Amino acid sequence: MEINDINVTSYPGSEKVYMKGSIHDIRVPMRKVNLTPTVKIIDGERMTRENDPVYVYDTSGVYTDPEVTIDINRGLPRTREEWISRRDDIMQLDCITSEYGRKREADTSLDAIRFNHRHAPRCAKSGHNITQMALARRGIITPEMEYVAIRENMNNATLGIESHITPEFVRDEIAAGRAVLPANINHPESEPMIIGPAFLVKLNTNIGNSALSSGISEEVSKAVWSCYWGGDTLMDLSTGDNIHETREWIIRNCPVPVGTVPVYQALEKVHGDIGNLTWEIYRDTLIEQAEQGVDYFTIHAGVLRAHADFVGERLTGVVSRGGSIMLRWALMHDQENFLYTHFDEICEILARYDVAVSLGDGMRPGSIHDANDRSQFLELDVLGQLTEKAWSHNVQVLIEGPGHVPMQKIRENMDRQVSSCHGAPFYTLGPLTTDIAPGYDHITSAIGAAQIAWMGTAMICYVTPKEHLALPDLEDVRNGVIAYKIAAHAADVAKGHPGATVRDDAMSKARFEFRWKDQFNLSLDPERARRYYVESHKGDDRFCTMCGPNFCAMRISQSVINDCVNS
Amino acid sequence: MEINDINVTSYPGSEKVYMKGSIHDIRVPMRKVNLTPTVKIIDGERMTRENDPVYVYDTSGVYTDPEVTIDINRGLPRTREEWISRRDDIMQLDCITSEYGRKREADTSLDAIRFNHRHAPRCAKSGHNITQMALARRGIITPEMEYVAIRENMNNATLGIESHITPEFVRDEIAAGRAVLPANINHPESEPMIIGPAFLVKLNTNIGNSALSSGISEEVSKAVWSCYWGGDTLMDLSTGDNIHETREWIIRNCPVPVGTVPVYQALEKVHGDIGNLTWEIYRDTLIEQAEQGVDYFTIHAGVLRAHADFVGERLTGVVSRGGSIMLRWALMHDQENFLYTHFDEICEILARYDVAVSLGDGMRPGSIHDANDRSQFLELDVLGQLTEKAWSHNVQVLIEGPGHVPMQKIRENMDRQVSSCHGAPFYTLGPLTTDIAPGYDHITSAIGAAQIAWMGTAMICYVTPKEHLALPDLEDVRNGVIAYKIAAHAADVAKGHPGATVRDDAMSKARFEFRWKDQFNLSLDPERARRYYVESHKGDDRFCTMCGPNFCAMRISQSVINDCVNS
Repeated sequence: MEINDINVTSYPGSEKVYMKGSIHDIRVPMRKVNLTPTVKIIDGERMTRENDPVYVYDTSGVYTDPEVTIDINRGLPRTREEWISRRDDIMQLDCITSEYGRKREADTSLDAIRFNHRHAPRCAKSGHNITQMALARRGIITPEMEYVAIRENMNNATLGIESHITPEFVRDEIAAGRAVLPANINHPESEPMIIGPAFLVKLNTNIGNSALSSGISEEVSKAVWSCYWGGDTLMDLSTGDNIHETREWIIRNCPVPVGTVPVYQALEKVHGDIGNLTWEIYRDTLIEQAEQGVDYFTIHAGVLRAHADFVGERLTGVVSRGGSIMLRWALMHDQENFLYTHFDEICEILARYDVAVSLGDGMRPGSIHDANDRSQFLELDVLGQLTEKAWSHNVQVLIEGPGHVPMQKIRENMDRQVSSCHGAPFYTLGPLTTDIAPGYDHITSAIGAAQIAWMGTAMICYVTPKEHLALPDLEDVRNGVIAYKIAAHAADVAKGHPGATVRDDAMSKARFEFRWKDQFNLSLDPERARRYYVESHKGDDRFCTMCGPNFCAMRISQSVINDCVNS
Repeated sequence: MEINDINVTSYPGSEKVYMKGSIHDIRVPMRKVNLTPTVKIIDGERMTRENDPVYVYDTSGVYTDPEVTIDINRGLPRTREEWISRRDDIMQLDCITSEYGRKREADTSLDAIRFNHRHAPRCAKSGHNITQMALARRGIITPEMEYVAIRENMNNATLGIESHITPEFVRDEIAAGRAVLPANINHPESEPMIIGPAFLVKLNTNIGNSALSSGISEEVSKAVWSCYWGGDTLMDLSTGDNIHETREWIIRNCPVPVGTVPVYQALEKVHGDIGNLTWEIYRDTLIEQAEQGVDYFTIHAGVLRAHADFVGERLTGVVSRGGSIMLRWALMHDQENFLYTHFDEICEILARYDVAVSLGDGMRPGSIHDANDRSQFLELDVLGQLTEKAWSHNVQVLIEGPGHVPMQKIRENMDRQVSSCHGAPFYTLGPLTTDIAPGYDHITSAIGAAQIAWMGTAMICYVTPKEHLALPDLEDVRNGVIAYKIAAHAADVAKGHPGATVRDDAMSKARFEFRWKDQFNLSLDPERARRYYVESHKGDDRFCTMCGPNFCAMRISQSVINDCVNS
C-alpha cells in the first residue's frame, strides 16, 4: 500500500526555524512569521520601519519544512530515537510481544495494507522505571524537558523577557504530576510537548474510522491535516476494520503524541460482543498498542458497577463509549470493572513504555441536564484514587472531563477536579454549553472550552461541526481545530502566559496599518482569511468592502492621530 | 422595482401558533415544534408515549406563517397600526417632514427603485410624550408590553410554572430604564420585543451595503434571512448609494426592530467629506429616518474632543466608524462633538416617534491591546450622563459596548457599565476575545458574547466570519446569527431564565431515543443538522456514522438501564 495524497506545504510568509538547546543537543521547531515594514509618508517622503517577526508554536512537524522530503510510506524522521537509544535503562526487543500483533504480522493477506517500514519495539529493562515522571523525580532534565521549555517560550527573545518556564520548572511540574509530557519510547517521531496548567493550553483532535466509514489513507490525511492546523495531540478512535494497521500508518507519520482508547480495539477483537470481552484480551491490546508507540491511553477505570444505580436518573445515560462498554461488562458479569481491579498491572505495562494514562470519564454528562450530577462526581473521586496509584508507578496521568455543561456549572467541574485529582492536568471535551445546536457544536463547545481552559484545564479536546451527526471529514477537522485554537489562545491570553499577546498585537498593528498580507500570514487560518478578502476585494488596499473608502474608521482614525500630533 | 427572491418558508416539523393576550386583543406568534412519540418495545409489545411540543421564540414574522401570503412589494401586515391609531396622543402627518425625504420623493429618477406602498408618517401630538417609557412611568401597560411578557414565557404552560415576567414586571423594567422596548410608531410591522437583563438575551444583526457592494434586493433578502435564523433586531448600516430607498424596503418588510447609525447617511449627503458635515444635515436625517420607522439610532454623542488626546496611546486608534467621524469633525472644526452639544434636541426628536437611542461607543477597543483603556472608560462615563438626560425626555436608552476584550477583562466592562450607566441595558459587539482569527470572528466573539451576556448584557451584536475582511453574504449572516443564538441561549441557561432548558432537554431526550427527525427540528439550524446526518447516513436509524452499531454509547447505555431496572 502507498499513500501519496498528503498535500500540506509550508505556511505562507513563514519560515521553519529551529532553536537550539543549551543543555542537550536538540533543535526545537518554530514557525517564524516574517512581517513587512511599516510605511509612512511623512512630508512627502516614504519612511519605513521594520516590524519584528512573530514566532508561532508549530505543531506541523517537518511537513512544513521545505528542507525535508516527506515520504508517508517510510514515516517521519525518528528524531527522538537517538536520545532513547543512548539510555541504558531501555532495551530493544527482538520481536513484538503481543499475541495479536504477531498474528497480524504473520497474516499475509494484510500485506496489501501494511505499513512496511517497521521498527523493532523498545521497552524498559527489567527493574528500571523509565518514564519522564520517574526521571523528573530523580532530578534529571531530559532532552524532552528542555525541548518543551524552549517551545513554550517562542517570543521571549523578541520581548526581551525571561520566562519562569525553564527546563528545571518543567522537570518540577512533571515530577509533581502537575504536567504530562507524553513520550512513548516507541514513538520517536513525536516532537515533545507538555500538558499542564502552567503551560500553553493544548488541544487534542479525534480522528479514526468507524465500521461505517473511512479508510487508512483518509485517516492519515486527517492526522497530518490536524497537525497542520494546530492540533497538539491526536487521538485515533478507530473502531472499524484494520485498526492495528491504520494505527501503524498514523503513528509513523504523526509528529504529535497519539492517544487511543484501547477498549475499542479489544471489543473489535471479540466482534463487538461485550460479553466476550476479557482482561486478557485487553491486556494484550495494551501491549500491542504500547509497542506501536501510542503515547497515552484513555482508560475508563473509574466507572464502577455501583455507579450504574444512578444512570437511570439521567436524561442521556452514559454517553462515553468506553464507559458504557465497561459498565455493561460489569453488569453482565456481575463483577467489578476489570480496568479498576487490574489497574496496578495496567500501570506496570504503561510504565514499561512510558505511556501516559488518561483516566476516562465514563460518566461524563451527555446533556446539560445531566451535568455535575452524582454519577459524574462519584467517578471523579475514583479517578483521584487511581491518580495516586498511577503516580506510585511513575505513570503520568491526565484526567478527562466533560462533555455537556452549562456555563454556570463549569467552575464546579474545575474546582472539584483539582481537589479530587491532586492537581493532575485536566483534559476536557468542550464542554458544550447547550444541546440545541447540532451542526455547530464546535462553537457551543469552544465557548465552554475557553472558559474551562482559562480556569486551568490543561488540554481541551476539540469537537467538530459534525459531532452528534457523523464522522468529521477534512474540512470539519480544520474547522474544529481552528475553533479550539481560538479557545486555547483566548485562555492563554486570559491566563497571562508569557508572550501570549505578541501575535494579537502584531495582527492589530498590521490591521491598523493596512498591511493585509501580514494580517493573513498572522492568522490562524491564512488561507481562509486571504480568500474572504480577495473574493470581495476591489483593488485598493487602503480599505476593504466592509466600509468602503469614506467609512473606514482606521483611516479616519489615523487622521485624528495626525491632527493630535500636529496640534 | 419588484423583489421576488425572498425564499423562506415555515420551519420543518413546526407550526406557527399565536397566543392571545388577556389585557389586550393581541396575538403573539410562537413556533411550536411538534415531536414524535417515544417508542419502546416492552415484552415484545410496541409501547408509545407522547412527547410535549416545544415552543420556540420566533423572530421570523409571518414569513413562516403559511396562512399569510408574502408580498415584498407591499410590505408586511401592519399589526401595530391599529393599536397606534387608537391612541389620542399621536397624529398622522400629511406629508413627511424632512427636507431630504421630500427631495427624494420628488425625484422621479428614483421611481425605478422606490418602494411604492408608502404610508403617511405619524408623530406625537404637541405636548404629549408618547414613548413606551413615558407610558410605563404613567403606569400604563401597553399592548406592546403585554405582548413581550407573553413572548418571553414560551414554555410556561408546558412546565406548569408561573414566571415572574408579567406585563406589570415588563412595565416596571421599562419605567426604570432597565429594559428597552423599541417601537417606533412608524414601524407598525415590527413585532414587539424587549431588551433588558431580566429578559431573554437578544441578538442584533448588521446588514447594509457599502459603496463597494450589494444592492437593495440583496439587503432585503439578508434582512429576512436574519429574522428567519433568529435575529432579534436588525441594523441597516448601509453607507453606499440610495440609503433612503434601501431602508424603506427593509423597514416595510422587517418584522423586528430596525436600527441605524444616522451619521452614516448624513456623511453620504456631504459626499463623505467630514468637514462639510453639519448639525442641520444630521438633524434632518434623524427626522427622515424616524418617519420611515427606524426603531433605534446609534448616536456617538459620548466621544468628546478631549478624548482625542488618548487615541495615540492605542494600537488601533478609533475603530468605530461613527466615533472616528465625530472625533475628526470635532478636531477639524475645533468644536465639541455636535451630537453631545445638541443631545437634548436629539432626544426631543426621538421622543416624538418613540425612537430609542443606542449610545454608541465611539471609543470601543479595536484590539485586545486597547481593551479597558482610559479612552474607553472616559467615554462610558459620558454615556452615563447622557443616559440620564435621555431618560428625562422619556427616551429609551441602550448602551453600546466593545469590541475586542480578552476574557480576563470582560467582567470589568460589565461592572463599569452598570455603575456608570444606571442600569440601562448593555448592548455589546461580541466582544472578540482574540485578534488572530480573521475568517472565524463569529467564534472569537461568540466566546466573549456568551460570557458578557451571562454577566448581564441584554443584547449582543453578532459578528460574522467575514468581519475585518469583507461584507457578509447570506451564508455569513446565517453563520453569524447561529453562533450568536448559541451564545445568547447559553447565557439564558446560565442565568436561569424560566424555561430556558426546555429545548435542550427535549433535544437530549430525542437524542437518547434516536428520534432523529425531532433532533433536526429542535436544532437552531434544522437544515444543516439534517444535511450533515443524511450525507453520511447508511440507513439504520439506531446509530450514526460517528460510532457505528457496536460503539454507540447511547444504545449500550440503554441496556445498562434495562439491566438495572430488571435487577
